[in-house]
Amino acid sequence: MINESLLKPKSIVVVGASEDITKPGGKLLKNILEGGYQGNLYVINPRHDTVQGIASYKSVADLPQIPDLAILAIPAQLCVSVTEELTQKGTRAFIVISAGFSEDGPEGKKLEEALTKAINKVDGTLIGPNCIGVLTPTYSGIFTSPVPRLDPKGCDFVSGSGSTAVFILESALPKGLTFASLISVGNSAQLGIEEVLEHWDHTYVPGRSSDIKLIYVEHIQNPDKLLKHASSLVRKGCRIAAIKSGITEAGKRATASHTGAMASADSAVEALFRKAGIVRCFGREELTTVASVFNYPRLEGKNLAIITHAGGAGVMLTDALSQGGLAIPPIEGKDRDHLLSLLNPGASASNPIDILATGTAEQLGQVIEYCDQKMDNIHGMIVIFGSTGLSRVFDAYQTIHEKMKQCRKPVFPILPSISSAREEVEFFLSHGHINFPDEVMLGRALTTIHQTPLPADEEIFKEGIDLEEIRTIIKAAPEGFLDPGTINDLLQAAGIPVVQEGVATSRKELLALARQFEYPVALKVVGPVHKSDVGGVILNIKSDEHLIAEYKRMRKIKGVKSVLIQKMQTGTELFIGAKYEPTFGHVILCGLGGIFVEALGDHSSGLAPLTFNEARSMVRSLKSYPIIRGIRGQEGINEDQFVEIIVRLSTLLRFATEIKEMDLNPLIGNSNEIRVVDARMRIEK
Amino acid sequence: MINESLLKPKSIVVVGASEDITKPGGKLLKNILEGGYQGNLYVINPRHDTVQGIASYKSVADLPQIPDLAILAIPAQLCVSVTEELTQKGTRAFIVISAGFSEDGPEGKKLEEALTKAINKVDGTLIGPNCIGVLTPTYSGIFTSPVPRLDPKGCDFVSGSGSTAVFILESALPKGLTFASLISVGNSAQLGIEEVLEHWDHTYVPGRSSDIKLIYVEHIQNPDKLLKHASSLVRKGCRIAAIKSGITEAGKRATASHTGAMASADSAVEALFRKAGIVRCFGREELTTVASVFNYPRLEGKNLAIITHAGGAGVMLTDALSQGGLAIPPIEGKDRDHLLSLLNPGASASNPIDILATGTAEQLGQVIEYCDQKMDNIHGMIVIFGSTGLSRVFDAYQTIHEKMKQCRKPVFPILPSISSAREEVEFFLSHGHINFPDEVMLGRALTTIHQTPLPADEEIFKEGIDLEEIRTIIKAAPEGFLDPGTINDLLQAAGIPVVQEGVATSRKELLALARQFEYPVALKVVGPVHKSDVGGVILNIKSDEHLIAEYKRMRKIKGVKSVLIQKMQTGTELFIGAKYEPTFGHVILCGLGGIFVEALGDHSSGLAPLTFNEARSMVRSLKSYPIIRGIRGQEGINEDQFVEIIVRLSTLLRFATEIKEMDLNPLIGNSNEIRVVDARMRIEK
Repeated sequence: MINESLLKPKSIVVVGASEDITKPGGKLLKNILEGGYQGNLYVINPRHDTVQGIASYKSVADLPQIPDLAILAIPAQLCVSVTEELTQKGTRAFIVISAGFSEDGPEGKKLEEALTKAINKVDGTLIGPNCIGVLTPTYSGIFTSPVPRLDPKGCDFVSGSGSTAVFILESALPKGLTFASLISVGNSAQLGIEEVLEHWDHTYVPGRSSDIKLIYVEHIQNPDKLLKHASSLVRKGCRIAAIKSGITEAGKRATASHTGAMASADSAVEALFRKAGIVRCFGREELTTVASVFNYPRLEGKNLAIITHAGGAGVMLTDALSQGGLAIPPIEGKDRDHLLSLLNPGASASNPIDILATGTAEQLGQVIEYCDQKMDNIHGMIVIFGSTGLSRVFDAYQTIHEKMKQCRKPVFPILPSISSAREEVEFFLSHGHINFPDEVMLGRALTTIHQTPLPADEEIFKEGIDLEEIRTIIKAAPEGFLDPGTINDLLQAAGIPVVQEGVATSRKELLALARQFEYPVALKVVGPVHKSDVGGVILNIKSDEHLIAEYKRMRKIKGVKSVLIQKMQTGTELFIGAKYEPTFGHVILCGLGGIFVEALGDHSSGLAPLTFNEARSMVRSLKSYPIIRGIRGQEGINEDQFVEIIVRLSTLLRFATEIKEMDLNPLIGNSNEIRVVDARMRIEK
Repeated sequence: MINESLLKPKSIVVVGASEDITKPGGKLLKNILEGGYQGNLYVINPRHDTVQGIASYKSVADLPQIPDLAILAIPAQLCVSVTEELTQKGTRAFIVISAGFSEDGPEGKKLEEALTKAINKVDGTLIGPNCIGVLTPTYSGIFTSPVPRLDPKGCDFVSGSGSTAVFILESALPKGLTFASLISVGNSAQLGIEEVLEHWDHTYVPGRSSDIKLIYVEHIQNPDKLLKHASSLVRKGCRIAAIKSGITEAGKRATASHTGAMASADSAVEALFRKAGIVRCFGREELTTVASVFNYPRLEGKNLAIITHAGGAGVMLTDALSQGGLAIPPIEGKDRDHLLSLLNPGASASNPIDILATGTAEQLGQVIEYCDQKMDNIHGMIVIFGSTGLSRVFDAYQTIHEKMKQCRKPVFPILPSISSAREEVEFFLSHGHINFPDEVMLGRALTTIHQTPLPADEEIFKEGIDLEEIRTIIKAAPEGFLDPGTINDLLQAAGIPVVQEGVATSRKELLALARQFEYPVALKVVGPVHKSDVGGVILNIKSDEHLIAEYKRMRKIKGVKSVLIQKMQTGTELFIGAKYEPTFGHVILCGLGGIFVEALGDHSSGLAPLTFNEARSMVRSLKSYPIIRGIRGQEGINEDQFVEIIVRLSTLLRFATEIKEMDLNPLIGNSNEIRVVDARMRIEK
């Protein structure tokens, strides 16, 4: 657990602090001093009386006070004994920046275990080892540059890689992003990414805590914990963006060589982030752009107005937003007329609203205000305003600043003239705003956020699912692939519909089954192995006459004693599959069936158990969703039922974790109903 | 035609130059003066004797010399008469920055026509009107800021939008990109994007001209001309990147409101750029990042080594490169052993090569050198080297600089520490290099370039295509949809295989046809409209016995006098379609058949006529290409034949431009052969 001694230490000792600021121990002390730490600061360095002006002591025993927090920048071999001394005296928080622990081999691993044991024994907090440190509003305990500007409403940031954290700060600071805290977890000997999230969750105070959380993670140790606290934070009003690197095969090898950690299967990560409501990013620039958007009010719908004095940038932005699912609805009728009445001749108000190069700051302000107050179908405004270098644009930027303060809806500023209007942009940023110099990058960040669903509910759907029966079947089943009968029983217990079929040995039986199923039906011989080669498969039979004719013909085929009649499922092939990922649980994939699933990779994933909202979001995020919805007069597929089957299956799997992999493939669906036509399950106990 | 007077004027007059540098005429004169123009510079401004220190004259008649180039910054109404006076005296180049022409309505359009006519009459050059001007190594004739640094080997840049050109410069200059020229074509009254490309093509001198061309275009006026000169330039060794904005429905409306120009259908643009070998970009940051890559040597293969001292950035880069089709091949065996022998314990050489935070500049240099000289399967290196703020990294950047000069292979630098190592990064850039601060953005630029094919050959494939017959059929055909017989004849004339079929009215005929086609076959009744409802369609018949049984049964169905027997095409459905786009010609689309084409939009496009290379690149760029190639033991599709059919169809269309739209849908193909099963064509004469 992260304790107060770590976050708000009244006293700190830097063990191994140095005069030499090219050494971690030297630079870290310098950062603490420059950060204006207000508590008592001590140094342990036996070779000096003072270090950087701070009293230095030879050993723990010499310290005039028991420090709340100890920061260790000494060789790994020395860390354990110093730590033990300090814990015995009463120190309860430790940051170990020293390397040479588990990342270095078995010897280092032993040292790390001893270190952790010493701190756990007194219920203390350990960050690291092998990290760049911790930054809180109380102290700047990192040994790297740049040190971000601290702001209680800035980003909280946890990173699984120290150097990557530094590089993310390099991308963040020029944008004007500020930070409330930074924790570099290093080897995560005691506390990892998940525990930091847990801490953020447990200590969250609405209106006082930061609402923006950033994560860089290479290996997810405890998906359940991450899910629990991330989704809890999002429900409380936080916005979380994260990079999970190491997603491709080659990338995985890179992770392995880097941290010795196996990357989690990417679909599991994708599913986890969706379930938690985390906005997933793939690069530093993307992460800091999304974080910049988080600094603005939330977009409460998908309709945006683009207000610009330069057409081209508006067109590129429109392209980027539309491709990502946001809308730039046409402005028509009285709104359009009113806007045009505010503007110079030749202006356009059809959205993008082009106020022309001759447009004034006053006109800009009036347009923003009208969009904010009078247009209910507009949920946010993006203002593109640069300079051609002819005149200063202070007045326009002052107007944008004022409107941003007044508007109920978010206003995102794109000020592209970062060199020719440098002073004006700096003036604008000095009000605490963040600028988006590139319209397409803002557009992509907005759509990435827009496409991230809210976190899922936690309740498990159990209606019409016979859990007792499922457990009984699973207990009785042997390991390996289940037989078709058992699979059918399981699906039935979960309320999942399977295709109707029956075997007939006489015309009478056959016609009775046909009555029951209703035409069309398929007829297949029972007996011959290569049915189709002997003319033993006829699909889509629609009349008694045709049925009997084929029956008569088939009975004459050698080796045929009976026929299988199946309700002809007409429609489109669908697919639901699941795989048990250790630590993650069942990852469920769905998509359209056939070879396309594999070739196009058009499937979406979720983690069991799934809610209806999650399953619906999975279905709707398929590229092939238009086929399910129905396109150009083509009949669609019963979406509600598809969603329900996915949910039912997820509950089944939640209570049958022995099922390690399974496929319902195909299900065949039309606008009326969906049924499982073939299924496969493998269990391990 | 662009003439020397425009590019290298010995004398310039700025008509309407002003003391007021917030006015275009004032700022433009200032830029020319600050740009150090060496020729004779005059001003026409009747209210002053000098303007910004330059002699000012009352009228054209008063000028002491006939200027080579006139730049007009006066009201549109006055432009025509001044231009006529100047042309009569002998001026042959004009840049008209004034607005108020065709973009302003019918009156302005007339003025623009008169202006153009006056200049055309003397075979002069006109840039504009309604543009920001022209920048060449001789003079800085633009009225905007920023003015880029000129360099004969920098980018040549043509823009269809003045303000967008300015904003692109804002993104380009901080990266260190330099420019050889900028032409803002404005309303393109005489010269547009295409004519500028033509000029670049005709004046290209290897080793002396710039090899980097950038284009921003909202409306392609003359696709043939653009294709001709862009592909010629690429063949000569140039690299071209372009933004064509206005691609989505909403984006198109935006273009329309901006320039009054209808956006071209996006698939035609996509096809045009592919055919020309133009790297397509979608935003300013992307364009300038691609241009930055163009400043480095070409990557002559797809294998990259990543050399880093910080793991996380290497992992994210690996993800981005692999996803875009570039490879980070594992390094093994003696190469790996050798690299490890150069590095500190704990380093990794499996690619990414992690030299560790403790790695020295010397080690970095040795690794780069080894990759360059000893590893044939590595085509380029990406070096990620930042600073944690502990020590200066001048030595490492000096090493990277030196290795970049020495290496045969490209070395792309990612220096993320733009603030904590600002001085070092500036030192590095001062050697003329370009830095990529974000690894993922570099990764995406490299893959975008990698995915752009070389320009297509110009020769049209005619082997086995009876062009005379095609013209005869087209001439004889009426307007509208062609009947199946005519379509068959056309396809046959082009050498495109269609499915075998025949009608039989007797068992004997039927069996003869079955012999000819070979089993399996399909049997369909002729007569009834809803064939399948009456049991009138049986697929996949594999024996005489089954065939005759079905024939007997079918002949008893009411209204059935004969049956259609078709060779049963088994395999996967494919699709080829074409649409005639005015000015572009036939855009040909191909993909897998069925509802997936529409729903997933998984098709690729090309412009007729197509070469085999182009058609192959179209087929291979399909997301569903793995299905054609064959996946996981599944039989693939005869790719060579698919490619050939696409080429044959493109030749057919090239010589039958009366065909305005057409579909071959489906073709059915397997690893053996592909045949057209259904086709539709509509002609307009």
